[in-house]
Amino acid sequence: MSDEPRETVVRATCRALCAHGYANLTMQDIADETDLSKAALHYHYDTKRDLLTTFLDSLASWYEGRLDELPGADAAERLHALFDECLSAEDDEADYPAFHTAMLEVKAQAPYEEAYRERLTAVDDVVRSRIETLIETGIEEGVFRDVDPEATASFVVDVIVGAYTRNVAVGHPLEETRALLDAYVDDHLMAQGREGGEGDPRREAAE
Amino acid sequence: MSDEPRETVVRATCRALCAHGYANLTMQDIADETDLSKAALHYHYDTKRDLLTTFLDSLASWYEGRLDELPGADAAERLHALFDECLSAEDDEADYPAFHTAMLEVKAQAPYEEAYRERLTAVDDVVRSRIETLIETGIEEGVFRDVDPEATASFVVDVIVGAYTRNVAVGHPLEETRALLDAYVDDHLMAQGREGGEGDPRREAAE
Repeated sequence: MSDEPRETVVRATCRALCAHGYANLTMQDIADETDLSKAALHYHYDTKRDLLTTFLDSLASWYEGRLDELPGADAAERLHALFDECLSAEDDEADYPAFHTAMLEVKAQAPYEEAYRERLTAVDDVVRSRIETLIETGIEEGVFRDVDPEATASFVVDVIVGAYTRNVAVGHPLEETRALLDAYVDDHLMAQGREGGEGDPRREAAE
Repeated sequence: MSDEPRETVVRATCRALCAHGYANLTMQDIADETDLSKAALHYHYDTKRDLLTTFLDSLASWYEGRLDELPGADAAERLHALFDECLSAEDDEADYPAFHTAMLEVKAQAPYEEAYRERLTAVDDVVRSRIETLIETGIEEGVFRDVDPEATASFVVDVIVGAYTRNVAVGHPLEETRALLDAYVDDHLMAQGREGGEGDPRREAAE
């Protein structure tokens, strides 16, 4: 299958996942989101698991692309831009609440589906390592304090992942976590004297 | 139904949930974990949803009890003890990895099951408000810096919830998040000059 139909199938899987959730999702639901018959879809993908695996593969690549081109004059601005990408409540294309609910179902399948766990780990790695690199760069630039980049990145990923789980489970607003993460960076990562940092005169004047 | 049988049914529901996961769980699976027949169970609980709702009710009460009697000489010690309760990888009774996988499935049902969302919100509220009270007390005691207790508590809950989701989805070790949360308290919440805080001579000598 060439790349274009693969992309079509990935998008159809995503739409079907949002519409039906994971547990009830069938090959027919996914075929219904394409111009393909169920038989044609089966020709390339044996099971729902294969389609989901392909979708999760493409999700990791999608994150890689989006997080590689973050806008910003320094590492701190690029880290805030990463939060825009990773904690945004809106998107033109996807039905976000349904998407994150379905993703939580898929995550709960990971202990039973090694193929899912591998791809979810790839997504986790992409986000975590991008944050780690930004923190390393920020320390080199003198923008951030001399924190442990690996540990700090993992902590930030815990916060982002927790925000989505709480959003689905108890309706906790993503924007609230987004604001807390921005404050965490300003209060705890910024080097003394940098914008938002504890020694910043603009900040102190505003208080 | 008197309290003792209710407790029996709650424990049976928990065991059955761990053994079968949420999606595949049947009334029969739960009855099999008790001395009751499926018919006797149906006499008190119409559906699997009713049993799960009762189980989630009791989970909120369980957290309330455990988090009300935290050991520690001050608020900081009691906050670390709360992390022991909320981020412990082991327990005598429950099959923990299976339990948290099943809980993630239940969380993913919350958008479709208002009864679950209500009870999950109660659990979230118990943990968050306990942390908030500990931070308020710590500020009054002079142990913690003058942070925003509500926002900080919500941030810590994001971290705890994220740790469990990552543990289930990608096998991220809970102990790692536990260590990062301890460090977060020591580095960012402790008042200057307190143990673990930035001005602590013992800490500086060790570095």
